Amino acid sequence: MSEKLSIVLFSGTVDKLMAASIIASGAAAMQKEVTIFATFYGLFALRKGDWKQNRRISKDCEDYGAQFLQVLEAKKAPNWLETLQSAMDIGNVKVKACGLTMDLLSIKLEDLEPIVSEIVGVAHFVEEASDGQIIFL
Amino acid sequence: MSEKLSIVLFSGTVDKLMAASIIASGAAAMQKEVTIFATFYGLFALRKGDWKQNRRISKDCEDYGAQFLQVLEAKKAPNWLETLQSAMDIGNVKVKACGLTMDLLSIKLEDLEPIVSEIVGVAHFVEEASDGQIIFL
Amino acid sequence: MSEKLSIVLFSGTVDKLMAASIIASGAAAMQKEVTIFATFYGLFALRKGDWKQNRRISKDCEDYGAQFLQVLEAKKAPNWLETLQSAMDIGNVKVKACGLTMDLLSIKLEDLEPIVSEIVGVAHFVEEASDGQIIFL
Repeated sequence: MSEKLSIVLFSGTVDKLMAASIIASGAAAMQKEVTIFATFYGLFALRKGDWKQNRRISKDCEDYGAQFLQVLEAKKAPNWLETLQSAMDIGNVKVKACGLTMDLLSIKLEDLEPIVSEIVGVAHFVEEASDGQIIFL
Repeated sequence: MSEKLSIVLFSGTVDKLMAASIIASGAAAMQKEVTIFATFYGLFALRKGDWKQNRRISKDCEDYGAQFLQVLEAKKAPNWLETLQSAMDIGNVKVKACGLTMDLLSIKLEDLEPIVSEIVGVAHFVEEASDGQIIFL
Repeated sequence: MSEKLSIVLFSGTVDKLMAASIIASGAAAMQKEVTIFATFYGLFALRKGDWKQNRRISKDCEDYGAQFLQVLEAKKAPNWLETLQSAMDIGNVKVKACGLTMDLLSIKLEDLEPIVSEIVGVAHFVEEASDGQIIFL
């Protein structure tokens, strides 16, 4: 079994944030070491409070998206941030921010949700991710 | 060589369904164990008969998409479902449905194409995928 | 550490081309063997000169995209093709074109940027990618 799972969080849509959080939870429960590397639009989604208003749905199936968000609300499904925080509570899950994107967009660590622990460069991420599985979403 | 390949089928666009089927075929021919985990919109695309009407193209290049579908039809390329069924005939390829999405959207196993063999939870998928390659598409 | 990284370049948006180039650079600097397999719309983006006019942004966050491109230009960030060429200069990075897409769309090797070294089939790619990490973007 691979001990590490690295998730590149590139897109900031609610459905992919949910997928990332749910996969991270499953992996954490299996004692895997999970690193989420937030970059590009994934970083926007981690700005403080952004989760409250983020209703972005993957464009590929946007017509199903409204139905999807309604069902989630009707069934009172936990939001992705709660799911991710639970994963961090039960296992070894870290969220790191891409330094290059932070610089380009003038975002600072204190602008982000406190689940983000540090800012790292791409080289750091590639090295950390190099002996495990990678998912890009 | 990694013995397993896991494909998360998240998006239900025709081009990504084709990519999944073609990669699964190649891997099956190499004796790899392939699991396709259909979730979110990927599950919609597996509803019985949906393949006949599905003309969704990845939005990122939708302007090329119409041309792409026309070329496929003009050249009588096999559709993704045929390609996937062939892969299942020649090798060890399984298609599993995400239980969480099924519950949320009230989809039942009998609503899906018979290539889907079972409904599984995320934990099952993460565990099964944990010692091989993962592709998210 | 896994010695190989395979990147499936499916989407031809500028942001994903940047992500691919930057990840390839990081991996090349670590002495990894990197293969970029350009397919579907990723292949369009590699046609000669296409990089000069390509301003496609991932649709999922298109509203942030214009801001993103402006910032890149204002900060004179290197374009993805320059970044990829640098990665090829410092390490073992190859770009291969998907034969199936080339056939379907009647594209020839000489229509593509010279960074593309050869046309290969899916079976070749799956075999080459089978003992390392895969990222699909």
